[in-house]
Amino acid sequence: MPLNKINLKEKLSKFSKHWSPRVIAEMNDYQFKLVKIKGEFIWHDHKDTDEVFIVIEGSMNIEFRDGIVNLSEGEMYVVPKGITHKTYAESECKIMLVEPKGIINTGETGSELTAPNDVWV
Amino acid sequence: MPLNKINLKEKLSKFSKHWSPRVIAEMNDYQFKLVKIKGEFIWHDHKDTDEVFIVIEGSMNIEFRDGIVNLSEGEMYVVPKGITHKTYAESECKIMLVEPKGIINTGETGSELTAPNDVWV
Repeated sequence: MPLNKINLKEKLSKFSKHWSPRVIAEMNDYQFKLVKIKGEFIWHDHKDTDEVFIVIEGSMNIEFRDGIVNLSEGEMYVVPKGITHKTYAESECKIMLVEPKGIINTGETGSELTAPNDVWV
Repeated sequence: MPLNKINLKEKLSKFSKHWSPRVIAEMNDYQFKLVKIKGEFIWHDHKDTDEVFIVIEGSMNIEFRDGIVNLSEGEMYVVPKGITHKTYAESECKIMLVEPKGIINTGETGSELTAPNDVWV
């Protein structure tokens, strides 16, 4: 049997730091990451890739230059490549990201919120 | 604002056929699909790609030649490329698949369960 199954809530219980993505799985050259967010992120984009957000628990906003999307548990959104966006959560929100390996959370912007890459939980 | 958000339960309410994947989103050259399954699928593999299963509601098994993984709501599994597997659900189970565009649900096996590809909901 090739691999172990992954329980999202169990993985989420293993870390608490905000804005610090943890890899839980790889599919080809893509990674699935869990992130806990609270407060406001920075404006950034990812020049070469779309990015998928899936809300596991809580509620968050993705702000664009021309509007805001609110996502609650069980909702997902694809941020197209090159589109500048900023995430925000009033209360802690637990999300899953899907994106290629090697993507930096702050894009090319660089910030104190830039997280180490490829940290597994 | 680039795209609309996607509500998984709302999308799931729009179709009922078993073993008939519906695309809900694209990320680069990958697709996110919802599937309702019940009963037993066929043995097959995907020679060129891993395949991700995420259980949205219910419970399912993924059987391998040397073991079985049981997945419940909130659990996910990556079936590595080239690994023969068969899915099974005693009661209806609602799942999300993530895989490259163009993947046929029965792999190269071909069966009456082979579903049309790229059907959106």
